[in-house]
Amino acid sequence: MMRNIKVEHLIETPVEKQQIELVERKGVGHPDSISDGLAEAMSRALCKEYIEKCGAVLHHNTDETQIVAGRSNPQFGGGEVIQPIYTLLVGRATKEFNGVEIPAEAVAIKAAKNYLRNTIVDLDLESDIILDCKLGTGSSDLRDVFQRDRVPVANDTSFGVGHAPFSELEQIVYDSERMLITDLKKKIPGIGTDIKVMGLRDNDDIQLTICCGMVGKYIDDMDHYINLKEEMVDYVTDLALKRTDRKVTTFINAADNCEKNSVFLTVTGTSAEMGDDGSVGRGNRSNGLITPNRPMSMEATSGKNPINHIGKIYNLLSTQMAKDIVKAVPDVDDVYIKLLSQIGKPIDQPFVASAQIIPADGANFNSIKSEVEVIMDDWLSDVTRITKMVINGELDTF
Amino acid sequence: MMRNIKVEHLIETPVEKQQIELVERKGVGHPDSISDGLAEAMSRALCKEYIEKCGAVLHHNTDETQIVAGRSNPQFGGGEVIQPIYTLLVGRATKEFNGVEIPAEAVAIKAAKNYLRNTIVDLDLESDIILDCKLGTGSSDLRDVFQRDRVPVANDTSFGVGHAPFSELEQIVYDSERMLITDLKKKIPGIGTDIKVMGLRDNDDIQLTICCGMVGKYIDDMDHYINLKEEMVDYVTDLALKRTDRKVTTFINAADNCEKNSVFLTVTGTSAEMGDDGSVGRGNRSNGLITPNRPMSMEATSGKNPINHIGKIYNLLSTQMAKDIVKAVPDVDDVYIKLLSQIGKPIDQPFVASAQIIPADGANFNSIKSEVEVIMDDWLSDVTRITKMVINGELDTF
Amino acid sequence: MMRNIKVEHLIETPVEKQQIELVERKGVGHPDSISDGLAEAMSRALCKEYIEKCGAVLHHNTDETQIVAGRSNPQFGGGEVIQPIYTLLVGRATKEFNGVEIPAEAVAIKAAKNYLRNTIVDLDLESDIILDCKLGTGSSDLRDVFQRDRVPVANDTSFGVGHAPFSELEQIVYDSERMLITDLKKKIPGIGTDIKVMGLRDNDDIQLTICCGMVGKYIDDMDHYINLKEEMVDYVTDLALKRTDRKVTTFINAADNCEKNSVFLTVTGTSAEMGDDGSVGRGNRSNGLITPNRPMSMEATSGKNPINHIGKIYNLLSTQMAKDIVKAVPDVDDVYIKLLSQIGKPIDQPFVASAQIIPADGANFNSIKSEVEVIMDDWLSDVTRITKMVINGELDTF
Amino acid sequence: MMRNIKVEHLIETPVEKQQIELVERKGVGHPDSISDGLAEAMSRALCKEYIEKCGAVLHHNTDETQIVAGRSNPQFGGGEVIQPIYTLLVGRATKEFNGVEIPAEAVAIKAAKNYLRNTIVDLDLESDIILDCKLGTGSSDLRDVFQRDRVPVANDTSFGVGHAPFSELEQIVYDSERMLITDLKKKIPGIGTDIKVMGLRDNDDIQLTICCGMVGKYIDDMDHYINLKEEMVDYVTDLALKRTDRKVTTFINAADNCEKNSVFLTVTGTSAEMGDDGSVGRGNRSNGLITPNRPMSMEATSGKNPINHIGKIYNLLSTQMAKDIVKAVPDVDDVYIKLLSQIGKPIDQPFVASAQIIPADGANFNSIKSEVEVIMDDWLSDVTRITKMVINGELDTF
Repeated sequence: MMRNIKVEHLIETPVEKQQIELVERKGVGHPDSISDGLAEAMSRALCKEYIEKCGAVLHHNTDETQIVAGRSNPQFGGGEVIQPIYTLLVGRATKEFNGVEIPAEAVAIKAAKNYLRNTIVDLDLESDIILDCKLGTGSSDLRDVFQRDRVPVANDTSFGVGHAPFSELEQIVYDSERMLITDLKKKIPGIGTDIKVMGLRDNDDIQLTICCGMVGKYIDDMDHYINLKEEMVDYVTDLALKRTDRKVTTFINAADNCEKNSVFLTVTGTSAEMGDDGSVGRGNRSNGLITPNRPMSMEATSGKNPINHIGKIYNLLSTQMAKDIVKAVPDVDDVYIKLLSQIGKPIDQPFVASAQIIPADGANFNSIKSEVEVIMDDWLSDVTRITKMVINGELDTF
Repeated sequence: MMRNIKVEHLIETPVEKQQIELVERKGVGHPDSISDGLAEAMSRALCKEYIEKCGAVLHHNTDETQIVAGRSNPQFGGGEVIQPIYTLLVGRATKEFNGVEIPAEAVAIKAAKNYLRNTIVDLDLESDIILDCKLGTGSSDLRDVFQRDRVPVANDTSFGVGHAPFSELEQIVYDSERMLITDLKKKIPGIGTDIKVMGLRDNDDIQLTICCGMVGKYIDDMDHYINLKEEMVDYVTDLALKRTDRKVTTFINAADNCEKNSVFLTVTGTSAEMGDDGSVGRGNRSNGLITPNRPMSMEATSGKNPINHIGKIYNLLSTQMAKDIVKAVPDVDDVYIKLLSQIGKPIDQPFVASAQIIPADGANFNSIKSEVEVIMDDWLSDVTRITKMVINGELDTF
Repeated sequence: MMRNIKVEHLIETPVEKQQIELVERKGVGHPDSISDGLAEAMSRALCKEYIEKCGAVLHHNTDETQIVAGRSNPQFGGGEVIQPIYTLLVGRATKEFNGVEIPAEAVAIKAAKNYLRNTIVDLDLESDIILDCKLGTGSSDLRDVFQRDRVPVANDTSFGVGHAPFSELEQIVYDSERMLITDLKKKIPGIGTDIKVMGLRDNDDIQLTICCGMVGKYIDDMDHYINLKEEMVDYVTDLALKRTDRKVTTFINAADNCEKNSVFLTVTGTSAEMGDDGSVGRGNRSNGLITPNRPMSMEATSGKNPINHIGKIYNLLSTQMAKDIVKAVPDVDDVYIKLLSQIGKPIDQPFVASAQIIPADGANFNSIKSEVEVIMDDWLSDVTRITKMVINGELDTF
Repeated sequence: MMRNIKVEHLIETPVEKQQIELVERKGVGHPDSISDGLAEAMSRALCKEYIEKCGAVLHHNTDETQIVAGRSNPQFGGGEVIQPIYTLLVGRATKEFNGVEIPAEAVAIKAAKNYLRNTIVDLDLESDIILDCKLGTGSSDLRDVFQRDRVPVANDTSFGVGHAPFSELEQIVYDSERMLITDLKKKIPGIGTDIKVMGLRDNDDIQLTICCGMVGKYIDDMDHYINLKEEMVDYVTDLALKRTDRKVTTFINAADNCEKNSVFLTVTGTSAEMGDDGSVGRGNRSNGLITPNRPMSMEATSGKNPINHIGKIYNLLSTQMAKDIVKAVPDVDDVYIKLLSQIGKPIDQPFVASAQIIPADGANFNSIKSEVEVIMDDWLSDVTRITKMVINGELDTF
């Protein structure tokens, strides 16, 4: 059956040339991102367990973690969590299959603890967080889907969205958070994992407003704090200037009032310790960013099963398609992919697969169009590759 | 102080003229919408309580309801909920102020029950749902904000997004869900409140895929069910054709397999009874739609306090600005508003207030620009009007 | 098979003649009693549901309700609950049997609400209490028990204890609470359901110390409160004097300090609204009393299934045996029954059935012995009568 | 002020000479005992934290832990927990004092984990248990009590009960569980911590029925299991015979059906993993036993604050008094202590302090009486010694 692929020439000022551009990234320790990370960690662990015990991934969706913030008393040189963060791991999972019992909640909780231990490194699991878990069982109809030996059918009528390439600002915002955690935190342990980067570009002026929950126990006093902030500002600005010729200004913890001793200090590096709740699917899209100048999907990607949950698969697939297109097809300034499923239809046959292309000036759109169609069709005919990449942990979801 | 208002001429194929357009609306009984509705109902009730007891709205955010789906055994002519839906109402609220205690959780729970009773009309509160509640207290710094007698400062660095006017498809998708519930349900009580409308426009073909959890107790048997679906299809198609000259095709419950007795039947009219979890901010944007062809914000609007939570205020304000602009300024085909705050700055002074205008062919952009600037500046100088409208229940949030 | 019945002549000062006697009763609104009442209400509702759907009572135990106290702001003429009482209904229940699904949690929650509505009459279910529920499924071995068509086998190695007759003080303590609620509350609605009566008899002096959470909305002011207390003191003293010739002194809310405005006032009539947690099996024994001068069992009676849960059946049966013995056999001053099961043995064949008899002076013990043995043997050969009485609501459990 | 001490000559067949005696002990891994242990561990940790931060123990009661059983799949040589045990730590605690914040819930959770790690040694905290926590704040009136620099006043009208000496059966039942865990488990790791010992003495025949959840991972197969049981039977019988000349018969896991592969096997050593819920105060009295032939109190001892919670203090004090009396006063066969408080009165002035003495034949009761009075008066005048012993961990509570 022919696939319903529509490639369209979009007349549009490319984002890079629009006057105002906004880009946001919530770092791994932001309460919404923690929820995303827990959701995806649970799903990966369940996939592994199902394959080990039953030879195939069974129905599950663990895409609804809810974090209820705690209360803390941060201090330079120490501090403590007063009331632990409460985390409710929520979802559905198959708990029995052909007589085999699957310890879904035990697996989920173990995976959640491992994830927190490795990612939210300044959180003390012994006392700072309560992990609760409510995993229902899925409906039997859905469970059925997973037993068929062919292309799964879509669990829902839903769409995914992707784009490529990243604009300068998108790349800078993404890299800022990533490098602060993976690189500068080695030198400055006081950098918390809860980093929010808001990028504003007004023509050729880029302003990065960064919120970072600093970790009190690694910071001696206010002077130390102020010095660290300056070091971080320089680091981020330098990093950005490697990726752009535009002017870059960086603010860190703009609401700090050092005279009044009111600064963004934490015990655990995340504001979930103090007043900031979090949940899945409210932060970064599957490409790691929030981009109001671009089409986006509301579908949470994290925690959904990678077999038939179209809200996950099509978001990830759209992004992969878009990346491949800009890599392989010349003269594409911007490409937007939208994939729409219809419930009950095979996932390699989307209701519509739409590509909107902003070609470079003078490009031959017809040639672009046919190349793009081939790339999209190839991906769709090999759609379960996304499933495998997810299970192998090759795709980020937030 | 001058406001940082930027009005930009956007070259773009207007959505109405793009080849592929996608629009989605989750109805009031969808688990994500129930979460939104509960979140906003709690916030409104708290606003009222605060005003009554303390003379002013105090700090709160109740924007994190989590619904854990139950299990049910739907039947024609009856059925029952086997495992109740579990709902965790989450947020922060001021519980004490100048010696006055505010029964925040009692107020929240009461408001939640009233909301469900009025909106999810086929849900039996006596046995079908568990309402749990965890409201922390906010940080004292934030509480401080609410006591100042001037324009509040932004609680976060965050942005809101709005657009106008609605495209044909947007209007049709929105109206379909609304009219099914407010009009046709009077005649056909078997229509459940959990209605999801997915609209796809491929040039001049509109396809509406509707998922509706039908209420078993009002439906005699499969024949009755099939008849009702046909009646609904006709109703929605007729409704759409009043708003467009394009071709309209409507599907209802596309995954039904009547021979196998597998149809979308429920006890309570919402899939939260059986396997579909829900949470705040994952469904409709504040204009009631999900529109991947338009800029969107990821910020949940429901449940946030309307005083200084910029994620709420700027989303609502952007939409109001956009609507006023298309109403008052001629020759605007599409307008996109983005409002960005910086934490700690007065909310009438956004970090940037951006309008992107797609003018009609031949329009005078400079004239448009100055009119738009005035409208935006007026709204910003009267920004607390949004607060009042929210408290009075004049603005929908999802 | 002969039953292992042992009737023993106990040399002992009868309680009525001991110098110091202590007797306590926690009224229906005491947090521990609320837990007991909820536990038993759930079990009764489940029994009914099982019989209706499956023709027989299936395995369940709902004997572990936990009440987490709320917080309140009581006032003369009003007051309000600030933080709702949290109640976790806990237990096991069969949720599926021969393909029939039983909505155990929905039934439990509905029964709990009905119980509260009828018993804790001043509690507003709309806002003052959160009802949560966690019912696991039982082990399959246990479920098996319920399908056999013969005398069930004991689920545990456990014992029940009973005695008769009530001493004067026991009768007075029991009646005081009962009559305050069922009689005087009609006239004085300000009497709360949370009444604790502690009776001390020192030879011929009886002192009743009563704690009663008064309901603020029915009491105008401190004078009114003081008057009501006096009326209650008179009522209880008069009631007691009808049952004894001893001297009776009654204290109500002995810790009140009226000058400091510190009195035992409540919003809902139960201290669960403010700081007093509760759980099943920590209050009254199945005869309605706590009697340290008598043998007692630690086994909670409320909420256990009446089919094979020996902790329930043998407590109730012991009391019934004891009552029958003092009614039918002359010259028995006091009788103590202890019934011990061994796990896996039929419940009509206790490991030991012990009666300790304190005969009247000059009585013929051998004659007593043989009469007692017959009564005990009769009851044991008709042991499932207890089951039926429980299901029909003919036996109190606390 | 003279204390109201009443010493009474009780005519009674001493327990050792009664025909039927029942004694029970629930081991540390029994779900009710786990609850007791967690409750007391939390209280001890809070006492320590309060002293460290505020210089004195502040108001708290953590006496209401609720355990909701999980589900498991035990196997010889392994097995796994399918659904984790859910544990709700419940109580009240002072969270703020003179501007100092006390992280009550964080302290409680940490203490709970440490307790489980040290006591329920075969439970994997990483995946087998969920620890949730709801600690309310106490009423301000109660908090006041803790600040006064004199003998605290009773928080309630309540009584404690104690007796001495242990009968043979009591000692045997107590020692059996203790030695299986502290001694034999070193050699046989397959012995689980969930051991229930039920002792029945019928004149000179002692029968010990022991339930012990064996730990699958340390047991190879059914033969191994049967061998271990035999070894345990011999061990317990030998131990008992060192303490009595009566005949001793021991049963272990009497409901086992080895042919049907139905034996009491566990993954974690406690039946909380599979269907047995637990809560505080439903198991052993503060002397470690359940003794229906003796007076008992229903008051939970574990988890209550040791400053003014009379339900704890008087239970522990009664037992200490009784022990001292039988040690110091000759010719006392049995002594029963009952201490009754009245709410609001100093705890060194009980409403009544009753001793019932069963003297040896021919003893001089008057001499006994005066010696007993002195011991009781001495203890009461130094009542806060109990508080210190509790804080220092010198007194067991279950």
